[in-house]
Amino acid sequence: MNAKQLAAEEAVTHIEDGMIVGLGTGSTSYFAILGLAARMKEGLRIQAVASSQGSEDLARQLGIPILPFSDIEAIDVTIDGADEVDENFNLIKGGGGALLREKILAANSRKFIVIVDDSKLVRRLGAFSLPVEIIPFAYELTMRNLAALDCKPTLRSSEGKPFVTDNGNYIADCAFGVIESPAELSNRLKSIPGVVEHGLFVKMTETVIVGSGEGTIAYL
Amino acid sequence: MNAKQLAAEEAVTHIEDGMIVGLGTGSTSYFAILGLAARMKEGLRIQAVASSQGSEDLARQLGIPILPFSDIEAIDVTIDGADEVDENFNLIKGGGGALLREKILAANSRKFIVIVDDSKLVRRLGAFSLPVEIIPFAYELTMRNLAALDCKPTLRSSEGKPFVTDNGNYIADCAFGVIESPAELSNRLKSIPGVVEHGLFVKMTETVIVGSGEGTIAYL
Repeated sequence: MNAKQLAAEEAVTHIEDGMIVGLGTGSTSYFAILGLAARMKEGLRIQAVASSQGSEDLARQLGIPILPFSDIEAIDVTIDGADEVDENFNLIKGGGGALLREKILAANSRKFIVIVDDSKLVRRLGAFSLPVEIIPFAYELTMRNLAALDCKPTLRSSEGKPFVTDNGNYIADCAFGVIESPAELSNRLKSIPGVVEHGLFVKMTETVIVGSGEGTIAYL
Repeated sequence: MNAKQLAAEEAVTHIEDGMIVGLGTGSTSYFAILGLAARMKEGLRIQAVASSQGSEDLARQLGIPILPFSDIEAIDVTIDGADEVDENFNLIKGGGGALLREKILAANSRKFIVIVDDSKLVRRLGAFSLPVEIIPFAYELTMRNLAALDCKPTLRSSEGKPFVTDNGNYIADCAFGVIESPAELSNRLKSIPGVVEHGLFVKMTETVIVGSGEGTIAYL
């Protein structure tokens, strides 16, 4: 069992009968969805909401019922991966481009469990470029505003065209180097008209589960 | 000449040869675009960027050249209307649904001239419901987060379906009543994942031109 799967299997032990579970997106979340389906075969009854079409489709195939958002007031537990985790439990997410929907789920969850392999742990965030979701309209001006925050923004592309998120927006990958104050940077980014959301998750989780290549699991 | 047209005609006297002009959206901006076209017939040379397809189409029909955003670094002057203006020059915009693109233009302009008729002047903002642009995904949860800020949010609809902005998003019209601190509310709104932008324009203009039904013009 690899490190990601180890962390995912541990995370699903937190899920209890009757819960509404938020499903993340990406390679680590994939293992969490498999783990949830396995527990349901053993009798666990849950319902879920998903942060991407891919995760929703996988869940449905495995028999996990998906709820419409109109039917729920809040999510009990969301399980999702991260691209970087610092020692204060702040995260960078969005390498896969689903950061906005993932953040909406996390923000509306009573508990947000982050699962990573140990390569994702850093003392301070920023080695991983920060994904920022931006409106296509006048994105050139928004990119200038991002650069003015002292980073190098690169428009994410796919097959020679701008990459388009599930929400119809673009992603600017912003190389900041070490991020001294994630909370302050978060506010600055959000104050730019044209910035929809960004991949800094500041103080959104208290539970980070780390799997290692040696087969161990640890809570950060 | 009506009050809106009066204010618009005054605003276009601020435009000088060689400027890049941002075009707003709505009934007041319509008169500004007509005024710019009239000045161009007298010899003024300008180029423009537009906050909506409607304004862009009108400008092109009238012979105002439209620039792609990739060609510009900033906008010299943007002229646009507002739904409410308070005595500190804070605005509510977005009754027409174009608030996000209008805010992007205003934020990237060296000067932002607001033109209104005198019915739009208020001591404090909030009689007009505040439009908030939100992501369609899980919008039900985002509406709950808006309501938690002590307002009554209503999803704007059009012909029985949710109204969709130029950016593919929804609008929640939020009845706050008197808004005590526009700056604080702005930060709170932007901190909600799923909120793309809102119609509070805080400290974005220093030039408000007011036309009256009696045919007078005043600078606030």
